[in-house]
Amino acid sequence: MLVYGDLQSGNCLKVKLILSFLGIEHQWIHVNILENETKTPEFLSINPNGKIPVVVLNDGRTLSESNAILGYFAEDTDFLPNETFQKAKVYEWLFFEQYSHEPNIAVARFIQKYQGMPESRIDEFNSLQEGGCKALALMDSQLSQSRFLVGEQATIADIALYAYTHVANEGGFNLSNYPHIQRWIASIAAINGYVGMS
Amino acid sequence: MLVYGDLQSGNCLKVKLILSFLGIEHQWIHVNILENETKTPEFLSINPNGKIPVVVLNDGRTLSESNAILGYFAEDTDFLPNETFQKAKVYEWLFFEQYSHEPNIAVARFIQKYQGMPESRIDEFNSLQEGGCKALALMDSQLSQSRFLVGEQATIADIALYAYTHVANEGGFNLSNYPHIQRWIASIAAINGYVGMS
Repeated sequence: MLVYGDLQSGNCLKVKLILSFLGIEHQWIHVNILENETKTPEFLSINPNGKIPVVVLNDGRTLSESNAILGYFAEDTDFLPNETFQKAKVYEWLFFEQYSHEPNIAVARFIQKYQGMPESRIDEFNSLQEGGCKALALMDSQLSQSRFLVGEQATIADIALYAYTHVANEGGFNLSNYPHIQRWIASIAAINGYVGMS
Repeated sequence: MLVYGDLQSGNCLKVKLILSFLGIEHQWIHVNILENETKTPEFLSINPNGKIPVVVLNDGRTLSESNAILGYFAEDTDFLPNETFQKAKVYEWLFFEQYSHEPNIAVARFIQKYQGMPESRIDEFNSLQEGGCKALALMDSQLSQSRFLVGEQATIADIALYAYTHVANEGGFNLSNYPHIQRWIASIAAINGYVGMS
């Protein structure tokens, strides 16, 4: 199995984490988005949407969208509840992550860390802080009530939200305002098989 | 069961469609986002993220995020494949919808249809056209190869993508450029139990 990704990307780290937690062997192929390696004809034949991560299974079938990949590998494991409502709550957090969290926190991080905060994007960066803080506050509120985002066991909801939350400071967010998130970050990093961005 | 929503919102229409296709009884409670009805203390106690749609089950448990709601109701029906890889492909399209389709097409529609294209958002509207056209082209390409987005039967991937695609013209998109999408729109509207926005 091949995984195309960049470990500095939270979306890609999610895939590395689930594979590592579950002990699934794979070959990681580094792709550099800053050099447009996701826009080559070869790469677009694997993922026409031109994004990482992408998984290529042994039979050649491909899967993209980081959170769909998480769901694929987590099926029938402890990282995705079997019960229909609990499973739906996990997916509720996964969609929240892609709509309300990542577009604020990951984009702010990209502007600050990778683009060096160009003048032309400072207004956008500032406006992303509000949405990002709101997303973090919603997580912190849930984590004040339960050990993980859905119940007392880590699920792919935690893996997905962890990815950009644990480096939110690189996007200008101050995690010391969110004590429950800080406790939760430490508990995810303590899971057997944990790997970080570097 | 209660559903809070607005049928003019594609995200809400998704929920109406799956409930109608499956013949699930519910009470629909109209919520007007333009009058900030999703920001009242009462509403925020139901969904702290302040968004519609939200479902309140008979036992009081709540579920938000339109595509997570689709997954909840579709479980063990023909609208969500049981096979793990096929199911993951459905979720791949659901995440694509929330990240690459809705933020372009639904937002462009909102600016044009609900805000009457204010001067201050014309640049943003124009920039959304590129991402929206890219998303439509990816759908059209898949629909040139299969009857529905994942295989030969309608799934919740089709319901989710249908919601804003069939009114994409209201966001400035010309669907006559996408013949396979046009064929697919007609086939969804022909499903038993179909309901539209009005």
